Parts: sequence; C-alpha cells; structure tokens
Amino acid sequence: LGSEAEIIERIWKRLPICPTRRGWLSLGPGDDAAVIGGGPRAANWVLSSDAFIQDIHFVSEVFAPEDVGYKALARATSDLAAMGAVPTFFLMNLVLPDGKTGRWLDGMLTGMARAAREFGMVIIGGDVAKAGAIAIHLTVGGSALHGRVLERSGARPEDGIYVSGRLGEAQLGLELVLRRLHKTAAWRRLVAPYLRPKIQTVLGRWLASEGSRQARRPGSAIASAAIDTSDGLSSDLSHICEASGVGARIWADRIPAVRVPDGLLRKGFNPLELALHGGEDYQLVFTVRRAMEWSFPKSRGGVALTRIGEVVDVRNFARRHTKARIELIDAVGRGWPLVAKGWDHFRAADGR
Amino acid sequence: LGSEAEIIERIWKRLPICPTRRGWLSLGPGDDAAVIGGGPRAANWVLSSDAFIQDIHFVSEVFAPEDVGYKALARATSDLAAMGAVPTFFLMNLVLPDGKTGRWLDGMLTGMARAAREFGMVIIGGDVAKAGAIAIHLTVGGSALHGRVLERSGARPEDGIYVSGRLGEAQLGLELVLRRLHKTAAWRRLVAPYLRPKIQTVLGRWLASEGSRQARRPGSAIASAAIDTSDGLSSDLSHICEASGVGARIWADRIPAVRVPDGLLRKGFNPLELALHGGEDYQLVFTVRRAMEWSFPKSRGGVALTRIGEVVDVRNFARRHTKARIELIDAVGRGWPLVAKGWDHFRAADGR
Repeated sequence: LGSEAEIIERIWKRLPICPTRRGWLSLGPGDDAAVIGGGPRAANWVLSSDAFIQDIHFVSEVFAPEDVGYKALARATSDLAAMGAVPTFFLMNLVLPDGKTGRWLDGMLTGMARAAREFGMVIIGGDVAKAGAIAIHLTVGGSALHGRVLERSGARPEDGIYVSGRLGEAQLGLELVLRRLHKTAAWRRLVAPYLRPKIQTVLGRWLASEGSRQARRPGSAIASAAIDTSDGLSSDLSHICEASGVGARIWADRIPAVRVPDGLLRKGFNPLELALHGGEDYQLVFTVRRAMEWSFPKSRGGVALTRIGEVVDVRNFARRHTKARIELIDAVGRGWPLVAKGWDHFRAADGR
Repeated sequence: LGSEAEIIERIWKRLPICPTRRGWLSLGPGDDAAVIGGGPRAANWVLSSDAFIQDIHFVSEVFAPEDVGYKALARATSDLAAMGAVPTFFLMNLVLPDGKTGRWLDGMLTGMARAAREFGMVIIGGDVAKAGAIAIHLTVGGSALHGRVLERSGARPEDGIYVSGRLGEAQLGLELVLRRLHKTAAWRRLVAPYLRPKIQTVLGRWLASEGSRQARRPGSAIASAAIDTSDGLSSDLSHICEASGVGARIWADRIPAVRVPDGLLRKGFNPLELALHGGEDYQLVFTVRRAMEWSFPKSRGGVALTRIGEVVDVRNFARRHTKARIELIDAVGRGWPLVAKGWDHFRAADGR
C-alpha cells in the first residue's frame, strides 16, 4: 500500500507546512532541499536530510567501512549541489549494532572525514543509538549567497536540457554486485562509481552563479532549473517537468551513457537502459535558457556537459502521451513516451 | 566496546569540526544543540537532531501511533527548549516497515501534527525509506533572538540550581510498562508522562530572555546555564558541571520527586531514585546567578520551579569525591557523591 511519492504526499498533507516564500522560509518541501532565513545581505541556509541504511541503501558486504562513510555524506551533499549551495555543515544520527562500534566505526569515520574535507564541511551535532542494522541519517546544510538557489520549478519551453558526466555508471556497478560479477578482475573497477560517487558541488555552485558578463540576464543564475540524478534520469527529469509544468524531449543518441565492456554487453547489460533508469550517479540534470546557450561550454572543471534535448510545452505534449512527461527520440527519429522507472522504496522488490 | 559518550567523542575526534564561536558557527557539538548563522540583527538558528526507534527508544506495544508521532517531535524539540530557542521547523527521515504505511502512518502523523501545532513548527523537508523497524530521525530548528542561547557551560559557583516540574514521572511510567503493571486501572494514568511528555518551550524561552527590568545584568539571560532532563538528573546535571568546570551540591529532600502511590511504594518503587536517575521527563535543569535569585518566582506559567541546591567550586569538591561532580545531602545532613546513572545506549542491558 502506497508508493514512496504517495507516502511523502501524505506527510505533507497531514503535517503543518509553511506557504513557500513567506517570511523565513523561502522554499519549502518538494525540492532537493529547503531554504531558510536570510535578509537580502545575509546568506540563506539550504537544508536537506537523507537516510543511508544497511541492506536498504547499500549492500553491506561489498562496502568497506570507508566507502559507507564517504558515500553517506556524498549522497546527502549532492542535494546541496543540485541547489547550487556551498556545502558547510552536517548533523549525524548514527545507529550502530554492537559489533560495529570499534574498528568498523573508525573506518567509517575516516571515509566520512575524507568526504567532509573534500566538500568543505564540518559536523555540528547529532545523536547515537544502538540497533540491529547500520543506519546513517544526515542533515546537511549549505549557504546560498544572495538567496539564489537552483529550483526544480524554473524550466520553461525552449530551454536546453543538459546532463553532467556519464549516466548509468553507478547502476552498472550495483548490478555487477547483485549478479556476483564484481569479483571478476576486468570488471572490478566498474564498481567504484557505485561505492564512491563523485558529486558535483563545484558545478552546482557555478550553475547558480550569474556566470560571465556576456550573460544577458544579470541577477539570474546560469541554469534555470536543476536536480541531481539520485533516482535515475527518467525519474529525475520527470520531477523537473512536474515542478515546472513542462514536458521534455530528449534524444537517445545524445545521452552520455556508461561505457559497457563487450563482455558485459553480451550478458545483456544495456547502456541506454542503464543511463535512462539507473540511479545514484549524483550527476546534475539542468536546464538553460536558449539565450544563454550560444556560449555554453562543453565541459566545466573537467566534467563533460552534454545537451541531451529541450524543454517543450506540456499542452501539445500531453495530447500524445497520457502519463509520461518525457518524449524519447530514437536513432531513426521516432518519438516514444519515457515513463519514470527510477527507484521507489515502497515499490521495489529487490534490496539496494 | 565503547560507551555512548566514548563513541560520541570518537566522532568529534575523527570528523572535521569547527572551532566554536568563529564565523557562522557560534556553538558547535557538545551542547543540546548547535547554533549557526546570524549577524547582530539577524536571528540565529539553533539546530539539533534526535533518533526515535522502535523497541530502542519506545516500547512499541504500549505506544499508540499518535503517541509515537507526538513523542518523537516533543523529545527532539526539548533540546531547543533547553537552549531557550523558539521552535520553528523540522526535517524528518522516516523509516517504516511494510505494514505501517497505511493507518499506522496516518495516526503517527496526526500525533506529530498535534505536537507541531502546539510548539509552532512546520516540516520543511525529509526522506522516507523502508526497513524492518520504525525509526523517526528528526532535525529540529529554532530561532534564538539576538543570538542569546542557554548553554551548558555558563554555571558558576554560588549560582542556584533549579528544576522545573516533577522528576521521575516518565521513568515510573516506563517501569510500570516493563513490569507489566500498566494495565492495572489505578496506575494506568501514571504511564501518560512516559507516552506524551510535556516539554518546556515557553519556560526555556523565558529563561533565555533578559527578564524583568529589576534584573541587574542587562543583556544577559535569566538562567546562566540549562539542560533538559532527557537522561536523568544525575547525568544531566553532571553535563552542566563538566561543561562549566564546576561541582553541584543538591539536597535530597528538596528534589520535587514523582508522587508514587502506596501500592507501588510497597512494590519497591523509590521516588528519590526515580527522580535522580530516571530519564525522559524533559523538564529543565538550570542555574541562576545569586544576584538574580532574590526575586525568582516559585512557578512560571503553571510550572513549578524548585531550588534544589547550588553550584560549588570544583576544586574543594574534587578532593572529597574522586569521580562524582555532584554531592547529594541526605535528610540528616550527610553528603554523598552522586554518580551519573542515567541512560547510555551502549551500556544499558534492557531495551527502552
């Protein structure tokens, strides 16, 4: 009973929420993170919380304790990157079984400290408890200068749609683990993006900035909307479309999909499927106004930025595809509705 | 291996922390909550996070879903009360087993909404996941006007030590449940303080204010230090003593202990033991400068405020009692070292 989205909707419906953009709360629930505080000269705080639970969010036997600590903080902080905020602090509720309070804990903290230094964050509070399975619940905070954040709701028809890096790499790693192929020497390195994702904090901060002087819209950010690919492109781009009231048209042959070795292609691994529906890459999907596109770079700080399609008017769009918000154009130019098939805790059958 | 305090110490030691009172962070880990942000005219935000887990923090069979929701938010928010902050918002990471996503969830949210309205809070974000046991991880935020918060470290020798309300009531309720006495009609109502604690947000806010014009120290708060009784008086007052570098002398016959019916006294329930070591009352323990005491009220907003002792110089004190920071004076005037015997997750044998 109840998908993840339905459960979240019931939470927002039954608990008191604040009308957005009023007083101290400038962005309420429903985006990657909430935005609080701040007059015009003060920095706003961006807050997000995230759960990382043994055998739900990570397969404990393949994760070294250092990987657990690193990934827990990375995935939580990716929501700040998607908002264009500068990661600053975190609080941790740590739940540990009896046998994990010694060396395991030290290793986990070492990995987490590495991530914290990389992102520029300090811990400011938390809680510890004992239970049967490892759970790391983090609330992360970042600052958004001048109150400018990248929301999901800013996409407009004719905007270009971009993704950073490659998509499907983490899902390939996870499926190698689930299919017990991760110990094969030739494929072992393909698991790394699943264990230690790179997150796009520097890119997010740039996308939230005003960019170069040539930009025609001073005061507004380079990107008009953004989200991180935590659930998978088909789900995450759908979130932007729903929040913005638009549709999207993307081209299959433009999507920068994971490179799959021949040996795995023969086993049925499909790069496009992995790229469209695989989660946990923590890349950014973002939209850019057409007027900003003429000078848009192909990469930034060593991270490829690929234009995969454009935002379309949802009114034309809805007539053709009843439920999908995204149209996928295949190699011969035919359009297909792309239904969100990303991760849903309360729908999924297999543990991840 | 490792008590709760040792585990927390390892976390602070291995993860990057910020030197307190520098830049945006005015109070780091180690108090009831952290304080961030805010120039002189802006309100500071006070943040704290707290875990509430089935069969660890609550005995699920006696908790109605409404009680779970109410208590989860109340106990987290009590840390804001102890800082004198005005509760404002929260984020929730909610972990649910399959069978709890329907009516149970609705009931839990109803209880939580009741608490949120009572305290004046809205939800601004969170995460949901599926797992075997119910877990509610909350990060609560409140505002501290003019940056004034009640820290643990402000107690000085000669300050008076006060407690609000009665102590030991929640522990009595818990022990009735554990000893299967909670269904007896005459004692059923004694379980309520364990299921739905009253928290002291209004009192905390007043203790952090400047108080009346007669107060002799404009700019400083009414209380010099404060903490909530979540672990029990012996533990929580020890925290104040350690953070402040002082000792405490308290009188057994002044402690406002839970009223225990004769039938339970005969079964061995000891009011003083319950009051000294019982947790989860969420009352406030606070200290007041001697100069402020002459006009100090006996109650505030219907909540009794009882002077139970005074802060003493730890140098004299340490000579007599090696480990304890607190001296308990019994009914005939003898002094006894009072060792902290409150709740510790990694030391406790029985589940709570």
